[in-house]
Amino acid sequence: METKNKHRLYINEVAPRDGFQIEPNFVPTEEKIKLINRLSRTGLAMIEATSFTSPKAIPNLRDAEEVMRGIERVPGVLYTVLVPNLKGCERAIACKVDEINLVMSASETHNRANLRMTCEQSLAQFAEIVKVAQDAPVSINASLSTTFGCPFDGHIPTERILHLVRRLLDLGIVAVTLCDTTGMANPSQVRLLCETMKARYPTVKFTMHFHNTRGMGLANVMAAVEGGMWRFDASLGGLGGCPYAPGASGNVCTEDMVHMLEQMGYETGVHLDALLEVARDLPAIVGHEVPGQVVKAGKADRKYPKPEWLESGGGQAALAGTK
Amino acid sequence: METKNKHRLYINEVAPRDGFQIEPNFVPTEEKIKLINRLSRTGLAMIEATSFTSPKAIPNLRDAEEVMRGIERVPGVLYTVLVPNLKGCERAIACKVDEINLVMSASETHNRANLRMTCEQSLAQFAEIVKVAQDAPVSINASLSTTFGCPFDGHIPTERILHLVRRLLDLGIVAVTLCDTTGMANPSQVRLLCETMKARYPTVKFTMHFHNTRGMGLANVMAAVEGGMWRFDASLGGLGGCPYAPGASGNVCTEDMVHMLEQMGYETGVHLDALLEVARDLPAIVGHEVPGQVVKAGKADRKYPKPEWLESGGGQAALAGTK
Repeated sequence: METKNKHRLYINEVAPRDGFQIEPNFVPTEEKIKLINRLSRTGLAMIEATSFTSPKAIPNLRDAEEVMRGIERVPGVLYTVLVPNLKGCERAIACKVDEINLVMSASETHNRANLRMTCEQSLAQFAEIVKVAQDAPVSINASLSTTFGCPFDGHIPTERILHLVRRLLDLGIVAVTLCDTTGMANPSQVRLLCETMKARYPTVKFTMHFHNTRGMGLANVMAAVEGGMWRFDASLGGLGGCPYAPGASGNVCTEDMVHMLEQMGYETGVHLDALLEVARDLPAIVGHEVPGQVVKAGKADRKYPKPEWLESGGGQAALAGTK
Repeated sequence: METKNKHRLYINEVAPRDGFQIEPNFVPTEEKIKLINRLSRTGLAMIEATSFTSPKAIPNLRDAEEVMRGIERVPGVLYTVLVPNLKGCERAIACKVDEINLVMSASETHNRANLRMTCEQSLAQFAEIVKVAQDAPVSINASLSTTFGCPFDGHIPTERILHLVRRLLDLGIVAVTLCDTTGMANPSQVRLLCETMKARYPTVKFTMHFHNTRGMGLANVMAAVEGGMWRFDASLGGLGGCPYAPGASGNVCTEDMVHMLEQMGYETGVHLDALLEVARDLPAIVGHEVPGQVVKAGKADRKYPKPEWLESGGGQAALAGTK
């Protein structure tokens, strides 16, 4: 490591919500609780623990109350949940979550497909939710899906994102997650949009949410850091995915992201070794391999013993291959 | 795409060498030839077609002559081969290759493990090879393995890389590939080293060679571009790998890299759709899945039809999930 970057970065672990919701099999409630409890002790700033949505829409997260009430909440870790409507908000507040995370899409078609509402209806619903939540001891974040492109509508003009953040501010929402829902963002675009957003809305608490659908996840994280952002969503093992890109990777992988940022000299507050230990047990929980790389390869500073035959002068053929 | 970067980038496709050499099964010679012929028509600047090494050391590439003599060489595409010693150099020149690519490691232990020589012995051998090759119509490139870290020796001081490039220049070698052999590099390190190298040796033709072992491949490519580099190795489908990181990804994936760079507004000369078509057939050639993402997910500007039920007002439940 030749540089030391001073910025403290904050990581929000979303696997229990964004990852488990799309899994082919229901992850048993006690497994969810155990995982969140372990994650809580790795130095993560935040955990998106579940979603208070309809059990019919997302059966995998039908145990939202049990999960929120079953976990041991570690002081200093912020527990956030996704909330798609007023009823979800009330359920979440009843469970004393630290933050509710509202969601709407930047694109009209994705919003209708995902939430069966127009964007204006979503904003109107946000206003209702804010009214209910504003006196509760809960903070509010809004996630803007498809900020970097929509699988139906294509490119989203920057002016539209600026407008939507303005509308959120007008509602009293000062924390906004900019989501690359289907992994369409590229680093140039990310950096430019981050700089634009920070310049126009310097007081907004932005979080960046990337997917690795097309392999650009960590490059986009790096571009966002360069663009002045320091709050990131990520998912253990790279769990999660995109219904429009079967076979493709999911969310940016938390441990790979923390590993890269740490190697670059950034502080994340996360104990990487502890996180890697949790990540190692993830395939057993979900019943399949996961995309995370560092668990397989070890950290970059991992050293291997010199080959024995090298010292003994033994007969091993030279590889003459690697470059 | 909101920016337009003007730099032309040059891509060297290394799958036929770096990929196939580590495959569990021998890829039949005619399949190799067919693949290289198809790659030659995708706009790639260079193809590393094979390695003139001992068939005992790398049985997978025992057909180097047949491959080099069997392919149709497309004018404007530079065909390069890896050459580990004088004998390999003579074999390569006899096949009229455009470029020979010498290889040594920046770290002493890796050089001994990979080539059974000290670094000084490698440099002495390079001098012999240059003497033989300098009057032949062939250019010479030298690859410095483990530039960004060695799995045995750890971090490699920048001074050592500067020194080795100086030594190569003294031998008359003006084209140098800086290799992150085992995927240890991080973007901060890459950017700094690239800037340092370009500043100290502005006339050297540098190529960057990254692995995605720890998920940082494309982030490192981006850092290198920002650091002023515009020549890159990459491997179709992300073939290749690292003997020290079983299960981890291999080389940076060519089509994912071209896709990212194109999305960022860079010119690579590669026809991405044509390259993706070749990449789609790769799993059948090697007999297993490959890490490339864009083949699975489609390009970022791929648009999906709006869900029919959205127009018909049908009964599909809202996902209320993606963010």
